[in-house]
Amino acid sequence: MYAIDGGLLDPVRAGLPAEAATGDAAFLRALLDAEAALARAQAATGAVPAEAARAITEAAADAGRFEPRGLALRARSGGNPVIPLVGELTDAAGEWGPYVHQGATSQDILDTAAMLVAVRTLGLVLDDLARTEQALAALAAAHRDTAMPGRTLTQHAVPTTFGLKAAGWRALVLDARDRITAVRDGLPAQLGGAAGTLAALADRHFDGDATGLPAAYAAELGLAAPLLPWHTLRTPIADLAGALALTAGALGKIAADVLTLSRTEIGELAEGAGGGSSAMPHKANPVRATLIASAARRAPHLAASLYGCLAAEDERPAGAWHAEWEPLRELLRLVGGAAHHTAALVETLRVDPAAMRANLDRSGGLLVAERLATALAPRLGRTAARTLVAELATRTRTEGRPLAELLAEHPESTGLDPAELAALADPTRATGHAGTLTDRALERR
Amino acid sequence: MYAIDGGLLDPVRAGLPAEAATGDAAFLRALLDAEAALARAQAATGAVPAEAARAITEAAADAGRFEPRGLALRARSGGNPVIPLVGELTDAAGEWGPYVHQGATSQDILDTAAMLVAVRTLGLVLDDLARTEQALAALAAAHRDTAMPGRTLTQHAVPTTFGLKAAGWRALVLDARDRITAVRDGLPAQLGGAAGTLAALADRHFDGDATGLPAAYAAELGLAAPLLPWHTLRTPIADLAGALALTAGALGKIAADVLTLSRTEIGELAEGAGGGSSAMPHKANPVRATLIASAARRAPHLAASLYGCLAAEDERPAGAWHAEWEPLRELLRLVGGAAHHTAALVETLRVDPAAMRANLDRSGGLLVAERLATALAPRLGRTAARTLVAELATRTRTEGRPLAELLAEHPESTGLDPAELAALADPTRATGHAGTLTDRALERR
Amino acid sequence: MYAIDGGLLDPVRAGLPAEAATGDAAFLRALLDAEAALARAQAATGAVPAEAARAITEAAADAGRFEPRGLALRARSGGNPVIPLVGELTDAAGEWGPYVHQGATSQDILDTAAMLVAVRTLGLVLDDLARTEQALAALAAAHRDTAMPGRTLTQHAVPTTFGLKAAGWRALVLDARDRITAVRDGLPAQLGGAAGTLAALADRHFDGDATGLPAAYAAELGLAAPLLPWHTLRTPIADLAGALALTAGALGKIAADVLTLSRTEIGELAEGAGGGSSAMPHKANPVRATLIASAARRAPHLAASLYGCLAAEDERPAGAWHAEWEPLRELLRLVGGAAHHTAALVETLRVDPAAMRANLDRSGGLLVAERLATALAPRLGRTAARTLVAELATRTRTEGRPLAELLAEHPESTGLDPAELAALADPTRATGHAGTLTDRALERR
Amino acid sequence: MYAIDGGLLDPVRAGLPAEAATGDAAFLRALLDAEAALARAQAATGAVPAEAARAITEAAADAGRFEPRGLALRARSGGNPVIPLVGELTDAAGEWGPYVHQGATSQDILDTAAMLVAVRTLGLVLDDLARTEQALAALAAAHRDTAMPGRTLTQHAVPTTFGLKAAGWRALVLDARDRITAVRDGLPAQLGGAAGTLAALADRHFDGDATGLPAAYAAELGLAAPLLPWHTLRTPIADLAGALALTAGALGKIAADVLTLSRTEIGELAEGAGGGSSAMPHKANPVRATLIASAARRAPHLAASLYGCLAAEDERPAGAWHAEWEPLRELLRLVGGAAHHTAALVETLRVDPAAMRANLDRSGGLLVAERLATALAPRLGRTAARTLVAELATRTRTEGRPLAELLAEHPESTGLDPAELAALADPTRATGHAGTLTDRALERR
Repeated sequence: MYAIDGGLLDPVRAGLPAEAATGDAAFLRALLDAEAALARAQAATGAVPAEAARAITEAAADAGRFEPRGLALRARSGGNPVIPLVGELTDAAGEWGPYVHQGATSQDILDTAAMLVAVRTLGLVLDDLARTEQALAALAAAHRDTAMPGRTLTQHAVPTTFGLKAAGWRALVLDARDRITAVRDGLPAQLGGAAGTLAALADRHFDGDATGLPAAYAAELGLAAPLLPWHTLRTPIADLAGALALTAGALGKIAADVLTLSRTEIGELAEGAGGGSSAMPHKANPVRATLIASAARRAPHLAASLYGCLAAEDERPAGAWHAEWEPLRELLRLVGGAAHHTAALVETLRVDPAAMRANLDRSGGLLVAERLATALAPRLGRTAARTLVAELATRTRTEGRPLAELLAEHPESTGLDPAELAALADPTRATGHAGTLTDRALERR
Repeated sequence: MYAIDGGLLDPVRAGLPAEAATGDAAFLRALLDAEAALARAQAATGAVPAEAARAITEAAADAGRFEPRGLALRARSGGNPVIPLVGELTDAAGEWGPYVHQGATSQDILDTAAMLVAVRTLGLVLDDLARTEQALAALAAAHRDTAMPGRTLTQHAVPTTFGLKAAGWRALVLDARDRITAVRDGLPAQLGGAAGTLAALADRHFDGDATGLPAAYAAELGLAAPLLPWHTLRTPIADLAGALALTAGALGKIAADVLTLSRTEIGELAEGAGGGSSAMPHKANPVRATLIASAARRAPHLAASLYGCLAAEDERPAGAWHAEWEPLRELLRLVGGAAHHTAALVETLRVDPAAMRANLDRSGGLLVAERLATALAPRLGRTAARTLVAELATRTRTEGRPLAELLAEHPESTGLDPAELAALADPTRATGHAGTLTDRALERR
Repeated sequence: MYAIDGGLLDPVRAGLPAEAATGDAAFLRALLDAEAALARAQAATGAVPAEAARAITEAAADAGRFEPRGLALRARSGGNPVIPLVGELTDAAGEWGPYVHQGATSQDILDTAAMLVAVRTLGLVLDDLARTEQALAALAAAHRDTAMPGRTLTQHAVPTTFGLKAAGWRALVLDARDRITAVRDGLPAQLGGAAGTLAALADRHFDGDATGLPAAYAAELGLAAPLLPWHTLRTPIADLAGALALTAGALGKIAADVLTLSRTEIGELAEGAGGGSSAMPHKANPVRATLIASAARRAPHLAASLYGCLAAEDERPAGAWHAEWEPLRELLRLVGGAAHHTAALVETLRVDPAAMRANLDRSGGLLVAERLATALAPRLGRTAARTLVAELATRTRTEGRPLAELLAEHPESTGLDPAELAALADPTRATGHAGTLTDRALERR
Repeated sequence: MYAIDGGLLDPVRAGLPAEAATGDAAFLRALLDAEAALARAQAATGAVPAEAARAITEAAADAGRFEPRGLALRARSGGNPVIPLVGELTDAAGEWGPYVHQGATSQDILDTAAMLVAVRTLGLVLDDLARTEQALAALAAAHRDTAMPGRTLTQHAVPTTFGLKAAGWRALVLDARDRITAVRDGLPAQLGGAAGTLAALADRHFDGDATGLPAAYAAELGLAAPLLPWHTLRTPIADLAGALALTAGALGKIAADVLTLSRTEIGELAEGAGGGSSAMPHKANPVRATLIASAARRAPHLAASLYGCLAAEDERPAGAWHAEWEPLRELLRLVGGAAHHTAALVETLRVDPAAMRANLDRSGGLLVAERLATALAPRLGRTAARTLVAELATRTRTEGRPLAELLAEHPESTGLDPAELAALADPTRATGHAGTLTDRALERR
């Protein structure tokens, strides 16, 4: 059981809802849903007897009678699992069997099933993004004025706030939500028959009108109606790739920051419940962030795999279609897993304002160097001010004495009274408009 | 001159408008535009004297006084070209020099310049997509009823029309147009200062209100106003990656079909002016389609490169930002080149309906096998009908005799009169709803 | 059962040996092998009692008592499956349990297990490459002189032979074999403890000498001895990525040619047993080639995923390590599946020399245009000869008359007597040194 | 000048030797070298007059008479730059012009030129890897016993040494060197004529023996002799992709560690000369490491682009060949630039042993938790010992008191005398076999 792949190598998604939503059983369910919906839509146009549609729907309802592994093995000879499934469903539908899959092609069913699986999985992703967004809104509001070092190219730059950082994370999550929602709402059913002309779908005599069938079929499934059969017009796949890669990256940004700020020497953030180690009893590893980061590393390649399949020759390509299936599934479940971990991560994230405060002081006032240089510029000229501050900054780094202290001793700084200098050198008063930006960002819903 | 890269290895874009729009000179122009716009926006809020804004704008207008190669060489020590450019622009602005780049960070200028370059290049892409779309609309209308073999997994499947194929290509082009337009219209200016807090942007005393500055700056440049500084919230980059990868794939689909249908043995399509060969005087190669196909192969990897940069740590990442620049430029100019070639390709595409007709007959009626099996199903049962037709199809392939002829000899087909059989076996009458689908697709604007 | 992934979406590998060799059960087996080997190696140095090593080996031998799915679920909290496995194995080893995993870290075991799985799977791949190479050698020898059109940029170029083509395919297969063999033979065991210093591996008092342990451990497992612990020195992963991506591409080249040459209009090759269709009874699809081609599309992205993990920070990276596991597994099983399909494909490939001959004539002698131009060059000058032949070639394409016939009518060709002209225009006599090249290529073993 | 691409967006390579070695001028030089070598090799077999070979060699020697940009523009119509170049070289060779490119195809020349460019650029890379290796050997030896925190998943794990870290970096560099050397030494010339049969290469009458020509041509160029023409057998491209991606990753690992250890809060390493900032006078950014890291992010995608071109149909693919050129050039110059920066980085790297020592203490002894738990295991049992240490470790983190101090107070630790405890808790004595491993690694040459 699960000998092939039960998630042993993928803690990003093992046991999480997105894994189930994208598993073989879920695909089988969706394939059967597609076949049943086709029969019902055809019954509505008279192409298929109503009894047949009922019988097929009933046969398809019982997924238990179909066995994914057996279908997988028999899929090899024809190259896709719909061929053996049609055979089994035909048998299961008894006398109405001949109406199963009437006029359709394997790709109609497999593509439609993939869209159903995508819609269902994206729903889970959106739920987790909503949890994430809410938790981040709370963090941003709570830490609106919690100063911390802003860091660029790994070095302390100027102060910022944790509120602004959390608001930025939330903005990314909302971007992801918006794009996923837009894509999900437009995912179309696929129906076209062997070459996308709808030729055989009307009825057994090829002389009915099947032009309304794709929309009816889509309606049965809650998918968007396609303007054209999209056998080799793979915009829906590209849209999924893009929205999922963006989402993985957005979550990856959060994870990257959590990992950095959780470092032993930085200690500004910690996962609510860190993970253990097989060797070291003391470790409290940022495991969720690690797993999210790993997903963010993999997702771009999976998306590229999908984008690479767009250039598909003919009415069905020999390879470019088949190469979509696993990467799409993998991308969905990876992002689904990462979203789940992210929601849990941010909901239980521990923020240490004291560590942030201590780190602000750690660089001896270098964080306010730009501010001091700017304040001195009217007196000394911009270049001279920058040069002076840069020199003193070097001394701060080598001698360990605070920049403000060195500056106070320096004749060129005459004119800055001690209170003024102290105010200028207070990093917590140097967070610019971080508060207002945070407020503004939180207004976005 | 051009010793480093003048397109010698990239005929996809050498000498085309998108190459110029993304070249070093274009980036330099955009960097200067950004610096000038910043000064003007600051002048409007009083953070900078109006005279300074005028002087800086004037200095920046003369791109000729700045030299991209020199900037490139001096960019190495700080890791980006804005640092040396600010120095040169400061000098050029004379007494107002100290107001250049006031409170900004390199990334504000470089990201904004990248957005300007993107907007300008996407305009070129949209023009070429419009040309392409129009040419395809004309082809689809002209060949609404031109039957040709539908091909799946390299084999003749059932008939389709060239009109439907061209309408499908056009649908992809419209998808690309829609996504590019949406992305382009939302590309934001970037402004935040060293850590995205706007701290130093207000004025030289840090005590003005800079919260309106990003919108004013964006307005100066015709870019969207950012909700937050997006130093490490890289949704705009991801949106560009996705829209461009989709576009490359859409154009790649057209190229893939043209390449297949131009094969010597197929001959249904030909480029208006094929390319020559250094060895073979007779070759008329589908060169444009080849170049477009090469672009479609490269684009997904460039997009993945960009998606991989989303997970950017801190307020400016050490690597993930720098790794965006070249892939974004390359993706823009590659898609720009491919769009240009595609417009020319479809505008001059030669369609050979006679070759299509001849190819329809080439498989001895196999293209109507599904149709014949369906017609026989009421008489023989679906399974028996399929089995019979499959057997005869095998004989058609091995003996070379048309399927309809074999079927006419076959006792089980009794009941199909010759006229009925001839009609069923006529591939040009077996194109299903291709015409209606084409009409419907052409209604989309 | 198999609800998560039993290959329903991956006919490239469903049910094939490489799938089993890379499944969760196979990884579990390898993880247990690694733990047992560690205990035995430690027993040999005296760091662990011999009885403990025996007990651990015995406990580990019974994979049935460990359940991959349960381990997968419990792997989530710590981020890897070794942590829960060590707990279970400790219990299973009874009183000797405390000696399980002594001084090791999860990564020692997981990396070593991955190497074991890789070695085992690469053995399968090599077997299939050997079958492929032999079948291709036979095809190349049999068709040493079977002329066929050489095609460049989709167009007939000059004649070649199928023997040379098959010999070329074989050369690629041998390249793949050589690289896989070299990589396989160098895959090292991993052992270093928490930070790669071997600190805790000596014995329970940390005072033994563990420097010989990695080699002893490797010897127990039949892996290469590592020069250093390679926790974050991921050359073995990169080597695997490269060799597997090359192999996928080599097989993909064969598939690409088979797909092209199987096209209905070309018909020079056919799969021994083509795959069926759910809609079209007559289809004999090149299914194996399609599946191989799909694998070749996916492999570069998986390899890139692995290469992207090389830049791993610290003594164990937070994400870059975890992101390797699934792509490595997927790449191994994909290449394993593709190699299996390729062996079967080439062993049963049907070659149609008559179709090749017919296609040679199909372009009216254009294939010998270069040859004719060269023959005329001494008489007319190279440029004039090329121009003349190019003009006549255009007429051949438009009028359908053979090039040699047009040339015979042409005054400028005076001097070529009819027999000479006929010989020059015979494509089967224009295959250059294809035969010698084929012979030479077949000498490579 | 340099309007198109003079490196403005790529400080990784702007102005460095690898940029020049891969620029258009360098490719032009290599194209001309290939044409001249062909003529000379043909002269040696008598296929071309010796005077012609001399004249062609002379004409080709003067690269100044050919203009890359003009060739680039004229390359568009035929899809490659060799076609116009042959025309220009023919003119330049005067009366001997007709012997230029005799029997060759564009791909022969372009592929050969790419190999020449690769060999030349890899030479530069190897020089920089040699510098890097030497500097790292010195660092490893100098810091053989400099203890520092080993870090896993961002957290202090157990102590290691900077010597071992530097030795590990060096091992990666040697791995890269070995693979690049092996690949470089095997890069073959390409020669086959239009379809790889050597048909037209013998002489103007097609009746000479050209089978020895490829080896002679290769010898003229210092490249390896090809076993077969490799038009569509792209192993050399794959080998380059793999070796370069590995190298980029190896350098990226070094950069990743430097970036982490340079963090303001960690401060164990610093670049010799940090880069400045346009906003912040005090910044000393790890610019080289940033640029190397950016190269490591891009390289896997470029390699994947190349691997994706292996599955090339026919005797010259319509797209897969053209798609190789720019990614190969980009990968070469990116790795060349990164190697150059890495050499400079490690040669001037500043190591701060005091900061390492201070950081070892920063986690209150958590780094020796594993060691303490192991030492207590014989007394308390492994599980109890781990549990106790984990509890105390939690207190260390929350209360800030050193682990050894807490343990000394704890009754269960009775039996560890203070000296023993102090020794166990000294992180500098807990570096395991790091010294021996370093010595061993340095023996590798």
